[in-house]
Amino acid sequence: MRTQTYQDGLVDARMDSLVAEEPLEIRLAFGSGQGRKRFSVAVTMRTPGDDEALALGFLFTEGIIGRADAVIGTRWMDENTLLVELQPTVFVDEERLVRHFFTSSSCGLCGKATLDSVRTVAHYFPISNKPVFKPDFLYALPDKMRAVQETFESTGGLHATALFDVHGTLLYLKEDIGRHNAVDKVIGTALQDGLGLPFKDHVLMVSGRAGFELVQKASMAGIPLMAAVGAPSALAVDLAEASDMTLVGFLRGRRFNVYTAMARIKG
Amino acid sequence: MRTQTYQDGLVDARMDSLVAEEPLEIRLAFGSGQGRKRFSVAVTMRTPGDDEALALGFLFTEGIIGRADAVIGTRWMDENTLLVELQPTVFVDEERLVRHFFTSSSCGLCGKATLDSVRTVAHYFPISNKPVFKPDFLYALPDKMRAVQETFESTGGLHATALFDVHGTLLYLKEDIGRHNAVDKVIGTALQDGLGLPFKDHVLMVSGRAGFELVQKASMAGIPLMAAVGAPSALAVDLAEASDMTLVGFLRGRRFNVYTAMARIKG
Repeated sequence: MRTQTYQDGLVDARMDSLVAEEPLEIRLAFGSGQGRKRFSVAVTMRTPGDDEALALGFLFTEGIIGRADAVIGTRWMDENTLLVELQPTVFVDEERLVRHFFTSSSCGLCGKATLDSVRTVAHYFPISNKPVFKPDFLYALPDKMRAVQETFESTGGLHATALFDVHGTLLYLKEDIGRHNAVDKVIGTALQDGLGLPFKDHVLMVSGRAGFELVQKASMAGIPLMAAVGAPSALAVDLAEASDMTLVGFLRGRRFNVYTAMARIKG
Repeated sequence: MRTQTYQDGLVDARMDSLVAEEPLEIRLAFGSGQGRKRFSVAVTMRTPGDDEALALGFLFTEGIIGRADAVIGTRWMDENTLLVELQPTVFVDEERLVRHFFTSSSCGLCGKATLDSVRTVAHYFPISNKPVFKPDFLYALPDKMRAVQETFESTGGLHATALFDVHGTLLYLKEDIGRHNAVDKVIGTALQDGLGLPFKDHVLMVSGRAGFELVQKASMAGIPLMAAVGAPSALAVDLAEASDMTLVGFLRGRRFNVYTAMARIKG
């Protein structure tokens, strides 16, 4: 679009590209026979693209489904509404759906309610104390992320999330206007590709802050180490501690802080 | 808390302060006599503090109440649940509450639904084409914000929002782990202080990106110019355009971009 740029009193007209932001409604079809139902689980503002992966990742990291093969398939009801068809045999806790629906209103998750409910549904933690990572492994991650981050350079408006293996190979990188969507897209894509759960030999890295929701999503997938360019919140540290997840913040240049499960990092 | 800092291979133990992040449930009491009801409107992850202002700002910017004096008072039901008592005479659209509840699940607002519903309830736009601002007015805003931003310096994890008058005087600054909460706290505090609606001689500045939700909130208060340190989203630009709000992005140093209602800035 056409914008005006002011710089030190001078004005220029120029073309600028913007990050797309559109609503995605995730609707679930579950149950069998006459009892089959549909339920709208969430509406999220997201950057279009990888929507099936986003829906799958969301349903998994929020504890609504426990495995990728719970999903038969997806189809678009309209341009922003994706219906996810579950296997008739998959049990869906309807009370939890309503509660989830509730706890995730407005901007995230109800910490107290969710700290409890995470414990109920998380299959994969406490995480074992391995693998162990060297500082050099971590120092290298941000550059690897930036090398494949394209949109950010042109718009400055996207959050990125990447999944690495223990050798530091970048497996997936997704960008989204919502930081939690970027995480869901990465985890959803890994599940689509058949990466086995838990993701116990993997590292998740996020471009911004380490908020509670992101740690929660990583812990659902059994990821042993999460690194963030920005700061963690106190509640995020609490959850990482309880999950025995190593939480790294302020990873920039050859520097980072470790907040929890410090034994997993060895010089 | 105790953290370990790695720098270029060396490790140090040190104390680190973290941003607090706690859930706030906003519950509404409305209606009169036998028909008086309670309804949980939202659970938001927020940095504790200014919670009454946050609740008031949220109810106003989401179009649930139209004026500050709709609220009789607030009281704590438990440490994270705030009950907002409305005047018995205030009309609350229950269907809208449920819809709102729905549209704001997961991470924000359903753009399409909300673009429509904003138009239904927004009392204060289109905004008139005044006042007019000089570039120098805008260049000065970030430094004024940073001068009163304390927490960010120590934790690196908070979003800040400030309200300025047309003379560039900073009236309010609030910080929160959620960017929309910082906006609601500022608008709520201004309403508590009796600042008259619309806020037509005021400028809102946010420390991060200009997302759709923030532009929506600013437009509800009739704010004619919103400036962001970061990038706007495409949907945010659409809404600002429709609201005749001047949207400024990438305001850093002596530089910024203008996306909409450009006539309000004059050299």
